Amino acid sequence: MLVQKFGGTSVKSIARIRNVAQIITRAARQDRVVVVVSAMGDTTDYLLKLARQAALSPQRRELDMLLATGEQISIALIAMALNEIGARAVSMTGPQIGIITESVHTTARIVDIRTDRITRCLDDGLIVVAAGFQGMTPEGDITTLGRGGSDTTAVALAAALSADVCDIYTDVSGVYTADPNIVPTARLMREIAYEEMLEMAQVGAQVLHPRAVELARNHRLKVRVRNTFDPDFEGTILRGADEMEIYRPVSGVTVDRDQARLAILKVPDRPGIAGAVFGSLAERRVAVDMIIQAFHQDRLVNDITFVVRRDDLVTAREALESVSRRVEAEGVMIDEDVAKVSIIGAGLMDQPDIAARMFAALGEAGINIKMISTSAIRISCAVAESDAERAVRIVHDLFHLEGQE
Amino acid sequence: MLVQKFGGTSVKSIARIRNVAQIITRAARQDRVVVVVSAMGDTTDYLLKLARQAALSPQRRELDMLLATGEQISIALIAMALNEIGARAVSMTGPQIGIITESVHTTARIVDIRTDRITRCLDDGLIVVAAGFQGMTPEGDITTLGRGGSDTTAVALAAALSADVCDIYTDVSGVYTADPNIVPTARLMREIAYEEMLEMAQVGAQVLHPRAVELARNHRLKVRVRNTFDPDFEGTILRGADEMEIYRPVSGVTVDRDQARLAILKVPDRPGIAGAVFGSLAERRVAVDMIIQAFHQDRLVNDITFVVRRDDLVTAREALESVSRRVEAEGVMIDEDVAKVSIIGAGLMDQPDIAARMFAALGEAGINIKMISTSAIRISCAVAESDAERAVRIVHDLFHLEGQE
Repeated sequence: MLVQKFGGTSVKSIARIRNVAQIITRAARQDRVVVVVSAMGDTTDYLLKLARQAALSPQRRELDMLLATGEQISIALIAMALNEIGARAVSMTGPQIGIITESVHTTARIVDIRTDRITRCLDDGLIVVAAGFQGMTPEGDITTLGRGGSDTTAVALAAALSADVCDIYTDVSGVYTADPNIVPTARLMREIAYEEMLEMAQVGAQVLHPRAVELARNHRLKVRVRNTFDPDFEGTILRGADEMEIYRPVSGVTVDRDQARLAILKVPDRPGIAGAVFGSLAERRVAVDMIIQAFHQDRLVNDITFVVRRDDLVTAREALESVSRRVEAEGVMIDEDVAKVSIIGAGLMDQPDIAARMFAALGEAGINIKMISTSAIRISCAVAESDAERAVRIVHDLFHLEGQE
Repeated sequence: MLVQKFGGTSVKSIARIRNVAQIITRAARQDRVVVVVSAMGDTTDYLLKLARQAALSPQRRELDMLLATGEQISIALIAMALNEIGARAVSMTGPQIGIITESVHTTARIVDIRTDRITRCLDDGLIVVAAGFQGMTPEGDITTLGRGGSDTTAVALAAALSADVCDIYTDVSGVYTADPNIVPTARLMREIAYEEMLEMAQVGAQVLHPRAVELARNHRLKVRVRNTFDPDFEGTILRGADEMEIYRPVSGVTVDRDQARLAILKVPDRPGIAGAVFGSLAERRVAVDMIIQAFHQDRLVNDITFVVRRDDLVTAREALESVSRRVEAEGVMIDEDVAKVSIIGAGLMDQPDIAARMFAALGEAGINIKMISTSAIRISCAVAESDAERAVRIVHDLFHLEGQE
């Protein structure tokens, strides 16, 4: 039993849909296959443009109704292309495959998958072509899953159907030690631990959405990241760290450019202030990273600094300015010249000198580190955007990632 | 309680969708409103093009999956535009409004409408924006209703909801005594009987599909044909002949150009032959009109001649050639130069001289009548296509239709 997911670039045109149909048929000779697809190429952007023309602030329920047509078009065309070359395929929308979500629009989470219909089709020898990104509330309304929705559909379906493997087809051959556009010597990793992939996905590696990685980890599902345009290559396999064959202190380096730094200055040092600041951001669904709280000399006021996605900057700034007035802080500072360079490695925690070596190497190269944050398997440095690519190359060299396998 | 239906040209662009939203809101101030919409402008043609690129003969189930997205896009955008101007609206797909059809794809018939959800929304004070043309099988597959599908959805919903009126908005002001492009003096009819409209719709008047007219007649539902671009005008009202205020022997003249004549020649005169011929056409869903069976002099063989829609010509020819071989007829004759000119009037049956006057007028003008067919309220003449428009003008003048109201 195999789940294959194809992203928007893989089904951008009818020619590409034909190519995808070939990949699917080959797999279907050996396995029961469920295919999950995104909307074709720019369809979602086109639909969003229509929505913005129809209304200044389109209702979320209606946005979902509209956007769900994108995947519905893809699944129908792929099923047609499959039937055309002699495979027996049937398309299914999110509601039809039984993806039940919470009653929230544009960012719904899956609460249940009713697999009886899909299982019946598979038992009949059909290839099921399922719409990614969408589901249905218990009341029968169409919902969409938000960012990374199709990846999430694929992994959730694979888990619900107890699939052996979930193949995520994209336009690169797998996960690299760094972006090959930045580091020409970057190497493709043959395997990566869920936790590493999770950290990489969260700090700029675009191949797989963190939501999907987390779901795969929770179900210990074997996921492969593969290239639609080089389908014979096995790509990168995600698995548990305990199943990994190779031990690496540092697996890869990522850069996340779409960052911005905010600070709320001279906040009175009273209990509950941090709660007010970050509560107000959480209410607006702004994700925050790299929080630093620094005392001023008099120890009566603090500066609280943190990093957000640049998309969220306007929302975050508004939230912060309102808190600033309320708690009588001095004001809000914005720094848009921020990129986050991170190293990821399941073995990081065992090697305390790695962080020090990273900071030293950047410092020797004259790169100023604006902020630092760490997790058990990640060390991130915020630097000026103009320094970011150089920083990635320095760190990639420092830990000899090019020669690691 | 009011059902309003807007066709593809009425929702062709966002500007037109905004216009439609105004018409709907105005109606919603007084009535409970259900809106039924078609796909925007050329969307269906575009989707069909994609389908033909994906497969030489796309599966009907997958075609329905694909085409249903067209209306889904319209309903979402219209609901957005309505909410934007302060109306409270909710969009619903065919499956969501509970349109249950037989398990036939691309030409499904409605078998049931489960109105509980739509009624709940109306009770909550919402305008329901429903997708025309589509439904769902009892197994949950998406179906489409084929030609005239959106008209049929509107009338069926109006009947199921016991609506007082069903307004069909189109790009003309109502039903005319003849096509104003052909007959400049043609007059708009303020009312027309179901039976007349049915005959007119079947022979070329494009404003309303015969399926929808028949459904309206069966439920004695008041239907108005109105102009989206002149929404204050009441248009043409369809009602029972017994409710009509004006008695007219001839109501209108229509022309149907997309016709072709076929003949199967020298068929042995045995029982069951006509059954074989028309059974074979019916199997292929080819509608037949104007059947003539003529004896040859020896009285041992017949010619059977009839008219079909030109779309069906290839299918009809194949069917006929196969029957011709089987029954050892001489062969099949095709005539593509055929247009059907018809007069319609609920009072026709009381005036036996009308047919004779029509034939005489056409003959005097040198127009050759290839075939004739009549019903209780219609007389049709097949003529050469080049004669068709002139024939319409002659007949329109003959019965003084320009001055009838």
